[in-house]
Amino acid sequence: MTESFDAVDVIAAKRDKRVLRKDAIDWVIDAYTRGAVADEQMSALAMAIFLNGMSREEIAHWTTAMIVSGERMDFGSLSRSTADKHSTGGVGDKITLPLAPLVAAYGVAVPQLSGRGLGHTGGTLDKLESIPGWQASLTNEAMLRQLDEIGAVICAAGAGLAPADKKLYALRDVTATVESIPLIASSIMSKKIAEGTGSLVLDVKVGSGAFMKTAEQARELARTMVDLGTDAGVRTVALLTDMSTPLGLAVGNAIEVQESVDVLAGGGPADVVELTVALAREMLAAAGKSDVDPAEALRDGSAMDVWRRMISAQGGDPDAALPVATDSEVITADSSGVLQRLDALAVGVASWRLGAGRARKEDPVQAGAGVVIHAKPGDAVTAGQPLLTLLTDTPDRFARAKESLRDAWLIGESADETVPLVIDRVS
Amino acid sequence: MTESFDAVDVIAAKRDKRVLRKDAIDWVIDAYTRGAVADEQMSALAMAIFLNGMSREEIAHWTTAMIVSGERMDFGSLSRSTADKHSTGGVGDKITLPLAPLVAAYGVAVPQLSGRGLGHTGGTLDKLESIPGWQASLTNEAMLRQLDEIGAVICAAGAGLAPADKKLYALRDVTATVESIPLIASSIMSKKIAEGTGSLVLDVKVGSGAFMKTAEQARELARTMVDLGTDAGVRTVALLTDMSTPLGLAVGNAIEVQESVDVLAGGGPADVVELTVALAREMLAAAGKSDVDPAEALRDGSAMDVWRRMISAQGGDPDAALPVATDSEVITADSSGVLQRLDALAVGVASWRLGAGRARKEDPVQAGAGVVIHAKPGDAVTAGQPLLTLLTDTPDRFARAKESLRDAWLIGESADETVPLVIDRVS
Repeated sequence: MTESFDAVDVIAAKRDKRVLRKDAIDWVIDAYTRGAVADEQMSALAMAIFLNGMSREEIAHWTTAMIVSGERMDFGSLSRSTADKHSTGGVGDKITLPLAPLVAAYGVAVPQLSGRGLGHTGGTLDKLESIPGWQASLTNEAMLRQLDEIGAVICAAGAGLAPADKKLYALRDVTATVESIPLIASSIMSKKIAEGTGSLVLDVKVGSGAFMKTAEQARELARTMVDLGTDAGVRTVALLTDMSTPLGLAVGNAIEVQESVDVLAGGGPADVVELTVALAREMLAAAGKSDVDPAEALRDGSAMDVWRRMISAQGGDPDAALPVATDSEVITADSSGVLQRLDALAVGVASWRLGAGRARKEDPVQAGAGVVIHAKPGDAVTAGQPLLTLLTDTPDRFARAKESLRDAWLIGESADETVPLVIDRVS
Repeated sequence: MTESFDAVDVIAAKRDKRVLRKDAIDWVIDAYTRGAVADEQMSALAMAIFLNGMSREEIAHWTTAMIVSGERMDFGSLSRSTADKHSTGGVGDKITLPLAPLVAAYGVAVPQLSGRGLGHTGGTLDKLESIPGWQASLTNEAMLRQLDEIGAVICAAGAGLAPADKKLYALRDVTATVESIPLIASSIMSKKIAEGTGSLVLDVKVGSGAFMKTAEQARELARTMVDLGTDAGVRTVALLTDMSTPLGLAVGNAIEVQESVDVLAGGGPADVVELTVALAREMLAAAGKSDVDPAEALRDGSAMDVWRRMISAQGGDPDAALPVATDSEVITADSSGVLQRLDALAVGVASWRLGAGRARKEDPVQAGAGVVIHAKPGDAVTAGQPLLTLLTDTPDRFARAKESLRDAWLIGESADETVPLVIDRVS
């Protein structure tokens, strides 16, 4: 028998800094999913949560309530153990693309249920859709078969997983209640736990290009998510990684796919390789394979083999030429010295404005648009050398993109102290 | 040229405790009235205001924006000066009924644009509608004529005054954002300033039956409203008055009209007379008549004359018998001693549950329902004597009403220290 609650009482309780009881949380999430709690009531509650927080127990109850709002998946029938990875989102963050086939090359199943991008961080599906023929949507059966046969799948998350989160996320987006640690943690973890993975590695980004601007915030988010996963029986570990500057040398869609293929071919930018290998090591360890060196499968081509099979299985042609933007514009260094800073947020916004991202859910993205980076922080540069190449099919966008890059970099006399790429580990 | 704003940015600014600029406030109120800012965005902003507050300047801008969202009235054409009164709402608060004709008896015009009750405090219009034939709705022309000819009018506020407030008030009611001093003050004062009165006396209630539970909160609300009125050129003064126990001996609709008529006839409960005279003195002084004794017009029948003309002008029969509830139940004292406490909120909720109030805007109210009080705090009582009489047309409501009265009173050995009815004055 479900006790009945009143939405106003639940909102008032959080407004007055009281702890929400489990049955109240169950009721409000269920009633919101059914439409019995209105959007304007949930947004007031979200703002109260944003400002007054939730306890560890409340966050756990909130997450559980969102999980039971929808279907759950079960990878128990697979012959392989599963390892999942989630990034909180950054600029140039294409790591899922080389990582999934790399970990699968060691016999671990990697289900990557991904989303499209909104705002300045790109979406994994948007990137892969620049491969001719590739399809993001799979039935659950097709997904399980691909996991069993190939080991890696990157596809669109079904609408049935945590529908409460889907509805709440869209609401938070228009009500300035996105950047709340309890709400971010429960949103991510409800989907990941509902997906039914055995282990999960979280890549929590820190810096200008990420939700979490400081290591302290990122550590709190990581700790909250690791606790939620552990409490739900998922082996969960988080790496805090730097997002003050873009990852790799490509920010966009097709150009990030190309960079990922470079990594799978044993090359690619050092930071992308380093983070791919670090996350692969965590995923393999969580899946019980701590004795292997994931860099090996990049060198010997076995990760590339999985990539090609994974792309083909979803209709993509791994040998097809990727789309190229029709127009480009080069930005050069205005002085000589050492590049001290290249701001992730600024480059992300520029790429977004060039057409690689979308402002509204229904907008299309340009496959070829984006920013190619010619120098990274710590590199010596000379006045007049190319720093960035801007790419787009719609050249009227160059002006707005360059506006966002106005204070994006700093050239000085010597290198700044560098931040390590992997800042911390929370388990 | 109006600068364009983004709702998410405005919400985020208040969420982050920043001061909202005048142009941002103008934009958000106008866009909300037009529907360009959605309910779920305004409720998130209301919760952020509830929790982070607004500066005096922000409240003034917010109030002005709500005033310009609708039409303004102008009493400049009247031959009399105008004095308005507003109560923040209490249990048994029928003061408007004797007060308006009393002040009008001295040649001052008293426009009382009133509302219906929602929740445990009754509405002035609900009370007057228990008079056979009486009509709450008047055109602006009819209202002005009645003010000019009779001096007093109590009628429904037109939909054209501060429509932003109307929309926002309904939203706050379902999102637990009612009890916020900036939002209460701007809601009340936007309507009162739009009405165009020359002077305004505020009755700010303090205690269990009121929004403001402590004198400190009430003083802050009073100060905020007096500042808003003064800044808008309205002579404004506020009395802080006790609402820990109901006003008078009648809580309901028809029985409160009867009690008001008793006061106009020179009788009635001492507290109702005291507060009516105190507020009349303030209104008369604000309208430039500080040399008269308002108690005189209660004794000499001139206030009653205005009452009769005022009721008749709106179709009511001042001599008609008032509706009487079909069923009653008496609650007796369980011990002998002195009544130390009779809780306003508990009696208000009981009256509401008996049918005098409504849970939803569209519910009807019972004219005869309510609670008659036989002993007030400080009175000696003997075990078995009647304390309260509950009245309703629907006797199945007695049980729920009595539930709310369970801890409503306390009988002890001696009288508690009494709170004065008028606690403070803010000008």
